Amino acid sequence: MYTPRHMKWWGWGDEDVSFNSSAHPGAWPYAKAQLGVEEDEVARPLMPIEAVRLPEAIRHEGFLSDLRREMRADQICDSRRERLIHAYGKGFRDLFRMRQGMAEGAPDLVIYPENENDVLMTLRAAARHDVVVIPFGGGSNIAGCLERSERSRMAVSLDMRRMRHVLEVDADSCTARIEAGAFGPDLEEQLNGYGLTLGHFPDSFLHSTLGGWIATRSAGMQSDKYGKIEDMVIALRMVTPAGVLATRTVPKSSNGIDVNHLCIGSEGTLGVITEATMQVHPRANSHRTHGYLFPEFEAGIEAMHECVRKECVPSMLRLSDSDKTALSLAFKPPSSQLSQAASKVMKGYLRVKGFDFARTCLMLTTFEGSKSGAIRQHGEVSAIYRRFGGVDLGPSSGKSFESTKYDFPHIRDFLLDRSITSDVSETSTVWSNLVPLYRATTTALRAAIVESGVKPWVGCHISHTYQCGASLYLTFAFKQQDGNEMPQYLHAKRAVQQSFIDCGATLSHHHAVGTEHLPWLTDDISPLGITAIAAIKAGLDPDNVMNPGRLRPSAAPFEEWLRVVSGAATAQRP
Amino acid sequence: MYTPRHMKWWGWGDEDVSFNSSAHPGAWPYAKAQLGVEEDEVARPLMPIEAVRLPEAIRHEGFLSDLRREMRADQICDSRRERLIHAYGKGFRDLFRMRQGMAEGAPDLVIYPENENDVLMTLRAAARHDVVVIPFGGGSNIAGCLERSERSRMAVSLDMRRMRHVLEVDADSCTARIEAGAFGPDLEEQLNGYGLTLGHFPDSFLHSTLGGWIATRSAGMQSDKYGKIEDMVIALRMVTPAGVLATRTVPKSSNGIDVNHLCIGSEGTLGVITEATMQVHPRANSHRTHGYLFPEFEAGIEAMHECVRKECVPSMLRLSDSDKTALSLAFKPPSSQLSQAASKVMKGYLRVKGFDFARTCLMLTTFEGSKSGAIRQHGEVSAIYRRFGGVDLGPSSGKSFESTKYDFPHIRDFLLDRSITSDVSETSTVWSNLVPLYRATTTALRAAIVESGVKPWVGCHISHTYQCGASLYLTFAFKQQDGNEMPQYLHAKRAVQQSFIDCGATLSHHHAVGTEHLPWLTDDISPLGITAIAAIKAGLDPDNVMNPGRLRPSAAPFEEWLRVVSGAATAQRP
Repeated sequence: MYTPRHMKWWGWGDEDVSFNSSAHPGAWPYAKAQLGVEEDEVARPLMPIEAVRLPEAIRHEGFLSDLRREMRADQICDSRRERLIHAYGKGFRDLFRMRQGMAEGAPDLVIYPENENDVLMTLRAAARHDVVVIPFGGGSNIAGCLERSERSRMAVSLDMRRMRHVLEVDADSCTARIEAGAFGPDLEEQLNGYGLTLGHFPDSFLHSTLGGWIATRSAGMQSDKYGKIEDMVIALRMVTPAGVLATRTVPKSSNGIDVNHLCIGSEGTLGVITEATMQVHPRANSHRTHGYLFPEFEAGIEAMHECVRKECVPSMLRLSDSDKTALSLAFKPPSSQLSQAASKVMKGYLRVKGFDFARTCLMLTTFEGSKSGAIRQHGEVSAIYRRFGGVDLGPSSGKSFESTKYDFPHIRDFLLDRSITSDVSETSTVWSNLVPLYRATTTALRAAIVESGVKPWVGCHISHTYQCGASLYLTFAFKQQDGNEMPQYLHAKRAVQQSFIDCGATLSHHHAVGTEHLPWLTDDISPLGITAIAAIKAGLDPDNVMNPGRLRPSAAPFEEWLRVVSGAATAQRP
Repeated sequence: MYTPRHMKWWGWGDEDVSFNSSAHPGAWPYAKAQLGVEEDEVARPLMPIEAVRLPEAIRHEGFLSDLRREMRADQICDSRRERLIHAYGKGFRDLFRMRQGMAEGAPDLVIYPENENDVLMTLRAAARHDVVVIPFGGGSNIAGCLERSERSRMAVSLDMRRMRHVLEVDADSCTARIEAGAFGPDLEEQLNGYGLTLGHFPDSFLHSTLGGWIATRSAGMQSDKYGKIEDMVIALRMVTPAGVLATRTVPKSSNGIDVNHLCIGSEGTLGVITEATMQVHPRANSHRTHGYLFPEFEAGIEAMHECVRKECVPSMLRLSDSDKTALSLAFKPPSSQLSQAASKVMKGYLRVKGFDFARTCLMLTTFEGSKSGAIRQHGEVSAIYRRFGGVDLGPSSGKSFESTKYDFPHIRDFLLDRSITSDVSETSTVWSNLVPLYRATTTALRAAIVESGVKPWVGCHISHTYQCGASLYLTFAFKQQDGNEMPQYLHAKRAVQQSFIDCGATLSHHHAVGTEHLPWLTDDISPLGITAIAAIKAGLDPDNVMNPGRLRPSAAPFEEWLRVVSGAATAQRP
């Protein structure tokens, strides 16, 4: 049986892939200058897997024998490697702890279901024997959705990757029924065979699954055209300890509360999404990305908003602020003499146009559709951009983006090797609040980093637009203080999240609540929103089997949040 | 204080408006011929309001004195007229019972809150004193959402019409915060003052409210452009007996389960939606509707689908089948000689094109936007239509539709006066299933009507398209058999709803579950969907104050459904 590979237990991506700094010779010097790093490049040695402190597994023999009656031995794994791979997602908190050999988040067992019955049987056995189940897709989550929250009960990671098939395609209606464990590339390859695409390309595309996307309300790079994942779900099946919730393949309904939306965003707390019928699309004939430069961030935002107003929205708009733009330029591969010359000409032109390079912002824009449609859209969008000072760089920067668009998370491992913390936080707000939110939050975040005694680097991009607003995605980095790494991170992360909430924005646009954003959930959806979610949980998972502690802030959420070692919390009943 | 008027207690619309048959001289002869009515036009005398059997009101003095402490006397009404107005919605079952003087569904009291605190205070007092609360918007619901389901407790109708203001507009982000009791025309007038529109124009537009639309997942005529109401909600406030659920004004989020969607479609069972922040739009400069004829229904469907495929969807597409088309033609006002002559020329042209008039179908299409945009869209759509045999009739039939589009529900009263039952059922399905569903359901419905010994009239239109499918709206009518009117209706209604479900479609596309569609809810959303909704109810309304019995099929749902007199069911605790 073909099973997609696991990511590194200690970092992002496939074992044999990492950030190649020699292909990006400007990157490390840029980081050093920005972050005040004076030492030469020295990678920390990686801890051997045997040295990681892995708590002894809790084994519930009754549960295990129930499983063994129904599944093959290769579906039930308890090796050190399997447990470590499933211990965490890939947030800073996760990677840092794993590098420190702290694997308290690891499950006691990993199960690979191959069909809905395997899932149902596992959940029922778990409820019978008081075992915790944590659904696991690709393991790419960075909000802390995947680690166990308690150590009083046996915990199982339910890895969905063997349920990976496109089961049914209705080409006439453009719908596809797909198993939830399908990874991005696998799913696209299967759909491409029908001339179709899902159109969902998150940064984590290579290492995340349909079920994970739905459970966390993911957004792909081309959400402007294809929507966020919740907009694409037509029907689904979710296995819960109380049975299977199933909805019908209909475009829209008025059948009371839309129960699809109880499953979407449930972050593994109610059950396991086993399959979904998704809106798919004929593949576009033409797809090309252009880079544009804007004289400043605000002008780029205005240009984006004008595209929305004119109902002329390309399939991707990705505007970086000046810092993120400088980072992108630092990452450029070494140019040929010809392109260096071309770049010189461009610089002269921009100087004539009055660009201040310290404030210049890059906007990547993807035109997709029929060949003529994409050309027409390029013309219309470029005309709008020009009104706001945008200058078309042509397709070359787009090509470089397209060829490296899934590589960015590798940089964090490279930086961690060099004692630099980096992470991201993202949100969304209405247009009228976008610039105020950007200014307040970058200011608060920089201040928080400075408070810990180091130089901040903060960059921002906007990559998902809506009629009423857009997302805001912050990336930040700073030099670690030896022995103070986690408090430093928590101080910065708390500042940015608190600013989101204080400015009226949401705790996350597409990364989920998990543990990392849980303290802000009550402010975001109101205390009664929490009550409502707890009520659904009590109805579908009365024994609190599914991913306990999630979507349910404790009485002192920040105390729990500041606790670095997982599983220290007392088990809660819903 | 301005308060929008109530509809007739016994029928649709304002007291002084009714169907004017002399303006449509072809209508009644068409109905007579179709339904096998031989008698001349004889309107049944209407029962005087004093003769209606209204059960004595249950009065809970403790509850009443709590209310009086907080509200003025004119906010608390218990007159016969008020109680009758709030007894039912406007479905066939409702109107027929009211005409028979059966007002068992009537509440004991009507309350008019003027702010969120009035609502909260009422709900808390109701919980304290074991009183039932049924939210009431315009009273236009035809699914049975509004009548009391039990007579063991005092029941209050909470009429929201005094909470009718647009509270806040963010013109830059195109959002508007609007009180839930705002009626369609009032709300549009307020928004138009800002140059904006909500773009939601359901058939009930004149007599329904924002809160009602959201609570029932309504769809407007121009949903193809503006979306269904659930697509327009950005944030909302819902008052429940447990407190106020409130969400943030952000375009999209990944904050766990989307609690907006627990309130949308809740049909008054959890609380009262008091306000919502909605996506609004600049008003279009140009709006015009053309009629087109297609040689047959299937060709029209193919043309619609092709518009969707080509991403060239007008703001309204409304395709009638041949029977519904014949009905529309019968309703045309008497033409001038000139237009008669023009019509003769058109008929000749169609004959040459090979049209069989018995199979011809009308497609109304609205082009909206900038003047040039609307003209371009007209050209593109007409080109698509021509490929499927569509012939452009120009704007005159569109004008006639625009001037009468909200009048259709009046015809039911006119027919009821003449002992003819008429009603509607609607659903949605994927494109690949649309024609099979249409054929199976119209066949089943005609057969069910014939079984009761009378001639059936069944017409259909399709009026909401999606990428994966469309809605299907059936209208049916037949002669009543004296004394057997309700069983006749129930037999037909059950056949059409059962066919929807058997064919994989949903119980309603935009009319709600209510009592009328409740027996099919379990099949539609699965038993665990029912469990989930009951769990939310238990969490937000533990005392079962809010619209009890809804969204919760009993153990024998059809027995309850066949019971004509409401309130006979035993009270259920959640």
